[in-house]
Amino acid sequence: MPTVEDVAELAQVSRQTVSNVINSPEIVRESTRTRVQEAIDSLGYRPHASARRLRTRKSSTIGVRIDPLRDGISGAVLDRFLHKLAEQADSRDLRVMIFTARDADDELQHVRRLRDGSDVDAFVLIATFHGDPRIEWLTENDVPFVSFGRPWGAELDDPRHRWVDVDGRAGVREATRALQQHGARRVAFIGWPSPSGTGDERRAGWGEATSIPARDRARYAREVEDGVSSGTAAAESLLALEDAPDAIVCASDSLALGAMLAARAASVPELRVVGFDNTPVAAAVGLSSIDQPLDDVVAAALTLLFGDSGNNVRPNPNSNEEPTNRLLVPRLVERRSSHLMPDEITGAQSSGNH
Amino acid sequence: MPTVEDVAELAQVSRQTVSNVINSPEIVRESTRTRVQEAIDSLGYRPHASARRLRTRKSSTIGVRIDPLRDGISGAVLDRFLHKLAEQADSRDLRVMIFTARDADDELQHVRRLRDGSDVDAFVLIATFHGDPRIEWLTENDVPFVSFGRPWGAELDDPRHRWVDVDGRAGVREATRALQQHGARRVAFIGWPSPSGTGDERRAGWGEATSIPARDRARYAREVEDGVSSGTAAAESLLALEDAPDAIVCASDSLALGAMLAARAASVPELRVVGFDNTPVAAAVGLSSIDQPLDDVVAAALTLLFGDSGNNVRPNPNSNEEPTNRLLVPRLVERRSSHLMPDEITGAQSSGNH
Repeated sequence: MPTVEDVAELAQVSRQTVSNVINSPEIVRESTRTRVQEAIDSLGYRPHASARRLRTRKSSTIGVRIDPLRDGISGAVLDRFLHKLAEQADSRDLRVMIFTARDADDELQHVRRLRDGSDVDAFVLIATFHGDPRIEWLTENDVPFVSFGRPWGAELDDPRHRWVDVDGRAGVREATRALQQHGARRVAFIGWPSPSGTGDERRAGWGEATSIPARDRARYAREVEDGVSSGTAAAESLLALEDAPDAIVCASDSLALGAMLAARAASVPELRVVGFDNTPVAAAVGLSSIDQPLDDVVAAALTLLFGDSGNNVRPNPNSNEEPTNRLLVPRLVERRSSHLMPDEITGAQSSGNH
Repeated sequence: MPTVEDVAELAQVSRQTVSNVINSPEIVRESTRTRVQEAIDSLGYRPHASARRLRTRKSSTIGVRIDPLRDGISGAVLDRFLHKLAEQADSRDLRVMIFTARDADDELQHVRRLRDGSDVDAFVLIATFHGDPRIEWLTENDVPFVSFGRPWGAELDDPRHRWVDVDGRAGVREATRALQQHGARRVAFIGWPSPSGTGDERRAGWGEATSIPARDRARYAREVEDGVSSGTAAAESLLALEDAPDAIVCASDSLALGAMLAARAASVPELRVVGFDNTPVAAAVGLSSIDQPLDDVVAAALTLLFGDSGNNVRPNPNSNEEPTNRLLVPRLVERRSSHLMPDEITGAQSSGNH
């Protein structure tokens, strides 16, 4: 294998100049840089990245945990996040290392090993939760990270915790109001068991906007595990109420699809449904859904970690003068399920082609 | 930061013994190993992975390109593949580095940089195609890789190319036969424009099994870009035939969902539809679909690269004595869309709960 000396000899420069071309090309005159680069190419010299990392203690790599697959519909939003992260990281010459973990503690084992090996410069945490041990550990150990998800139950403005999140409360509030503007008189809600940071916020948004009186709200809200069949069961119990709802906002597209199926099976075509996450399933079946602005989420996360460009980790500011978090507003994507009779739902896409 | 010397002093062993505990623990007596490990832990010494990689030229990392998002439904199968790859890699103590690329040439630039930096030991290629330049480049440059996808248009048994693929032809053949056993008399096909390695195979499977006479088959096959709306348009043109088909097998769930929507819009509830990839959408709307055994695909890919266990890349065998590829058989998952009237389709899930 050719060495740095071989390159220096062929390019008729010093060993240090070769090293400069590789590590700090901006300080080398262009003609020299071209000559050295030609020598590197013709010899097939490979500057060893591990050696470079050993010198610089920088890997230009971010680490992300991806969960084992659970529900294929709602999990899709995190896959979309990962794709967008890989794309935007690439434009900053950053790599993305993924790993899987059984739980938060197992994730921390991975984090520790990757940090100890200088394999990654920073981490992106997905899906924070109440009492999340990862945030405390990463903060205490000065490991740079940003989370997609706010610090539930902890101080929102701790400058040591950089985070980006989407305001699900605002999204559900907007969806509930839109349904009422389209004529719905009793908008119910299907969400997840409390405490769930994300779920509780979404339910709060419904509570702020629904025209159902406060004293009746508990009867019109359901808390179930995420999934199509639990959405169906919850919607069935809502439809069995004496004053059944004429619209349901759901905390996920899986639950919403379940609600649509329940309405169909119970022959209640006039039930309006809105989901959350704007998954491909929602687009395919004509389900209105609240869309998270993932491009903006990823851009904000990388900016908080690395600044407006480049891939050098920024130190955390010591005060709150500079914001270290961003709360983004989602957008309601309206389709037939919030306007028309669900009977027409499955014809939604094709009718556009006539 | 503590150094290896600090550890040696605290554990009262030589520097070499510390190094052995880190790099070749199996040659160190257990009592010594425990003492050194305790010293490492109490000092917080971090053996630097970059230094280790520099010595061993091994990163225990595999590289995978993920595509920018296109169709959210059919693309989901590659996300599922990635999740399973991350899980199975973890159990071998392998990491996964992901990167994105605009096209095959751009991907090769990434591959070259990752290889040059010893950042990855091997690559997993997804979605091979005719004249795929990656395969030739990786083979010529002795970069270890395995592809999920066979070498289209090239020698299948070249021992330098390790690959795993799913026999889509067999899958579509089985689906076509199943539809005919359920009473379908004219099974049509909607697939992708030729040449497409995967698409041509799936269409060939239909041709081998459909009861439509060979001379009429071209009339009952459509070639369109993947997507829900193109599936709808293709199904509409099939339903407009004088002897319209009573069943359609599609090369993807996106096309199949489009066909279901077309049948509903045209009030042809008796049309049976089968998709491909068994995506979450298929499960949610009761669409029968051909399922790729991704657990087996990932296990076979890692075994071809690394052997039955561990994470040392195996050299390619020099002859064909040892198989360097695996063709796995998919499985038809039958739901209402291949049995019952599509009118009942959207009630499929909820009716199970009554």
